[in-house]
Amino acid sequence: MNKSILVIPGDGIGPEVTTWGKAVLEAIGKQYGHQFTFDEALMGHVAIEATGNPLPDETLAKAKASDAILFGAVGHAKYDNDPSAKVRPEQGLLKIRKELGLYANLRPIMLFDELLDASSLKPEILKGTDILFFRELTGDVYFGEKKRSEDRNTASDLMIYSRYEVERIARKAFEAARVRTKKLCSVDKANVLEASRLWREVVQEMAKDYLDVETEHMFIDNAAMQLVKNPKKFDVVLTANLFGDILTDEASQIAGSMGMLASASIGDGTGFFEPIHGSAHDIAGQDKANPLASILSVALMLEISFGLKDEAKKITDAIDKTLKNGYRTGDIADVNTDKNKILGTKAMGQKVLEYLS
Amino acid sequence: MNKSILVIPGDGIGPEVTTWGKAVLEAIGKQYGHQFTFDEALMGHVAIEATGNPLPDETLAKAKASDAILFGAVGHAKYDNDPSAKVRPEQGLLKIRKELGLYANLRPIMLFDELLDASSLKPEILKGTDILFFRELTGDVYFGEKKRSEDRNTASDLMIYSRYEVERIARKAFEAARVRTKKLCSVDKANVLEASRLWREVVQEMAKDYLDVETEHMFIDNAAMQLVKNPKKFDVVLTANLFGDILTDEASQIAGSMGMLASASIGDGTGFFEPIHGSAHDIAGQDKANPLASILSVALMLEISFGLKDEAKKITDAIDKTLKNGYRTGDIADVNTDKNKILGTKAMGQKVLEYLS
Ligand SMILES: CC(C)[C@H](C(=O)O)[C@@H](O)C(=O)O
Ligand SMILES: CC(C)[C@H](C(=O)O)[C@@H](O)C(=O)O
Repeated sequence: MNKSILVIPGDGIGPEVTTWGKAVLEAIGKQYGHQFTFDEALMGHVAIEATGNPLPDETLAKAKASDAILFGAVGHAKYDNDPSAKVRPEQGLLKIRKELGLYANLRPIMLFDELLDASSLKPEILKGTDILFFRELTGDVYFGEKKRSEDRNTASDLMIYSRYEVERIARKAFEAARVRTKKLCSVDKANVLEASRLWREVVQEMAKDYLDVETEHMFIDNAAMQLVKNPKKFDVVLTANLFGDILTDEASQIAGSMGMLASASIGDGTGFFEPIHGSAHDIAGQDKANPLASILSVALMLEISFGLKDEAKKITDAIDKTLKNGYRTGDIADVNTDKNKILGTKAMGQKVLEYLS
Repeated sequence: MNKSILVIPGDGIGPEVTTWGKAVLEAIGKQYGHQFTFDEALMGHVAIEATGNPLPDETLAKAKASDAILFGAVGHAKYDNDPSAKVRPEQGLLKIRKELGLYANLRPIMLFDELLDASSLKPEILKGTDILFFRELTGDVYFGEKKRSEDRNTASDLMIYSRYEVERIARKAFEAARVRTKKLCSVDKANVLEASRLWREVVQEMAKDYLDVETEHMFIDNAAMQLVKNPKKFDVVLTANLFGDILTDEASQIAGSMGMLASASIGDGTGFFEPIHGSAHDIAGQDKANPLASILSVALMLEISFGLKDEAKKITDAIDKTLKNGYRTGDIADVNTDKNKILGTKAMGQKVLEYLS
């Protein structure tokens, strides 16, 4: 198989972790005889510094021309603390999602047994949890009109959804539910929000085409609670952009750490694969970041964009072995971890490569 | 002290739990020589059934005339599953919040040591947690304009904040932080939302008047994660209406159960006190609901609206004793609970009354 992959390292720990995602792709290419070719492009704070634009035209053109994108992270505290900044790193990410039509963000909550103790939740609560989130990614209050009054004293964002936007993501979620345990939970706030009422109407109607799937509706406040109380009760979770952002970060504690979770954004064209963690500037450049989420992003890419299931499994097996042998980055180490087996980013990446071959 | 209290039992388990809140108020009145007089009014589904209106004028008039309000819950599955219903129980609650100017919703996350094991979080993660949420309650996407297109295929809600709305709730939160551990965390999504950028600007400016308070800003997705990962790091948390709804429900798992959390809504006039749990129709009328959140609401009422600290402490002490002696409702029972000490709503309410005298 011949595939061109665009790597967008981005900001903070982005470059450190995508290095290992890319290395794993190269290793898999060699082992299985695939031709993976790579290019690189700028996005986020680094792109602003270099070009003034968080998503330069060149990056977008390369993205559209590639077969898949491996992304790191964007963001910088400089902008976070300056609410009146006109240009921000996140605009690059939001724009590429929109431009590539990446309306479906899949976030599997994978639980490696070895990490049961790394979570703040009790192991008996966690064990057996396996959730696949479908977060809508190109609509909602993220993309609705933003306004600031002339005196700057009033600000607003429009939370807005149209039927077709709900339908296309819901379809993907229902189809996924069919090949999993046939359970779908749609999360909204239909007791308060009109956009949620439309969301619920559409999902209710579509549920009639998926009578083999047990469909449930839950309010976001309740879902945020149930996710901590009894994560096992969820299988496929379907939700809007903002609620999905919140719920999936919360769910990262189920996997022990954000450093363990990858996501796939798909839609009309090229697929986009990234860790769910952010740029984490506080640990950037210190060889501390967990590269596993980027490596798991690559597994998702192989499976979802290229249909290479065996290769994807090879990667998750290698991670499994790494963990089984006691190796941990700082974020997933617990009191029982052998100190000598707490590794930096590079050593952890190398361990996975080792177990891959 | 002479005080008139309006009881609004509402729907589902509302009547069962407010019965015990009221009984505790009566007991405290007798013990301390206060004259508490009571009236009752309709709101929610029961009000719709009786009058067609989820908040009848009579209820609103009585509410405005009273010194404090003890509320149960509203909601009914009938409306949840009918997204096109014109009248809904929740409208009553939203309208009374707006009409009474209840812009500040205080939700203390109280942790009774006896319930450390009832949570899905590990006891060592929980122990020492003490959070006071300030949720803005009369603005945000809850009250912004709602629209549905004529073809009904597009729906929107306006997420909107004005400077004065942020200021008045932030002031209350900063003042509270001063008399606690002088730490305030303001939660927003300023990397994406204009309303959040205004929110952050205002809080940053006000922080200059509270230099003795250590002020931090956190994105909602990160906050939802940190709350599970390390709840002890939070003290006063200040946030908008929607984010507060989600975070406080999530935080209920810290207290072991929603059945243990009370909230106070205050603002321009009469204070409004309620459990954070909902109407829970699935267990309504079965003598299963936990009355402690309603009883804790009464403690908040005594302290916040009437300045009766000793009386409030008397109540939390009685609850403490009840729990120390092993009594539990189903929601907070764990594997170690003596089966004979798992009580229904009534028996639990009576136990608290017993320990009160
Ligand atoms: C960086 C930010 C704009 C982004 C989002 O909110 O979507 C991030 O939190 C995510 O979840 O991918
Ligand atoms: C019932 C509902 C409208 C309400 C809210 O979302 O505010 C409830 O969840 C709460 O938190 O008080």
